[in-house]
Amino acid sequence: MLRILLINDTAKKVGRLKAALTEAGFEVIDESGLTIDLPERVETVRPDVILIDTESPGRDVMEQVVLVTRDQPRPIVMFTDEHDPDVMRQAIKSGVSAYIVEGIHAQRLQPILDVAMARFESDQALRAQLQARDQQLAERKRIELAKGLLMKMKDCNEEEAYTLMRRQAMSRQQKLIQVAEQIIAMSELLG
Amino acid sequence: MLRILLINDTAKKVGRLKAALTEAGFEVIDESGLTIDLPERVETVRPDVILIDTESPGRDVMEQVVLVTRDQPRPIVMFTDEHDPDVMRQAIKSGVSAYIVEGIHAQRLQPILDVAMARFESDQALRAQLQARDQQLAERKRIELAKGLLMKMKDCNEEEAYTLMRRQAMSRQQKLIQVAEQIIAMSELLG
Repeated sequence: MLRILLINDTAKKVGRLKAALTEAGFEVIDESGLTIDLPERVETVRPDVILIDTESPGRDVMEQVVLVTRDQPRPIVMFTDEHDPDVMRQAIKSGVSAYIVEGIHAQRLQPILDVAMARFESDQALRAQLQARDQQLAERKRIELAKGLLMKMKDCNEEEAYTLMRRQAMSRQQKLIQVAEQIIAMSELLG
Repeated sequence: MLRILLINDTAKKVGRLKAALTEAGFEVIDESGLTIDLPERVETVRPDVILIDTESPGRDVMEQVVLVTRDQPRPIVMFTDEHDPDVMRQAIKSGVSAYIVEGIHAQRLQPILDVAMARFESDQALRAQLQARDQQLAERKRIELAKGLLMKMKDCNEEEAYTLMRRQAMSRQQKLIQVAEQIIAMSELLG
């Protein structure tokens, strides 16, 4: 059973979405206004999905979404009356997995949540790929830097320096990047 | 006015979505079964959005979506009765911007299309970033390769080779990668 952190931002709507969720068989584990510290609530409550019901998502909501997406990513479903395409764009860019304008119907909740979770997985995979590339690029730069330093220390050429680094990595069962970091640290120590 | 390429895959449904779209004020520029060559239709028709109405998207549909997303990316909205989370996941992974289970209502079409377009933009931006990183990484490897070749040709060290390459790039107003490619080509020519 999905555990849903439900956030309502208008008094008049409280209960409407919760009722629909309960009817659809979900466990609603919390309900709070938008003034809360969302990242902290997520950390404490550890929901499977975050569901935000808001007339119009303001800048404060977007900021909370950005923080959660960065630090504790979760599928975020936003039900709203806001039609403005700029707001939609901002919400999706901030990390919202599903942005639903109007209409909360109990029988539609399950597919909406399923689609949001599939979307979330797909986004996470893409972001992970991007992060892996960034790391690869950063490591490559550090390895090049270390190689240059080693060439000076040992007065050897590029190939020899690279061979030395690979040999060291193999004999110590370390990754090349670790050997590179050791060389850089050593070079700093030796001035 | 948005130009929509509408794809129906079941005879019994033909007209239902088209009527809703026309009512909502969209220009429906085509309507075809799913046996068509979608990439070719997109190339010819150049729609703003592709809308697929299908009871359940089969493997053939997914393949067409993948091809379009790869070669001529467009926001793709899929209306379907298919609840299976695996199918949803597959559809989203293939490039579907919005996956809507059941319920086509004229007054909901505008926000659904707007959200789909915002999602499409966001995905495209992420994919472009990923592609840029891949290119950066590939260029870096080519530049390193060229530097090594130049060190051998000129019998110089890494720094000198790099300085030579940068100087050449500046004096010819080329990018470093272009100079690198010239060095690699030259090295192949000289054997």
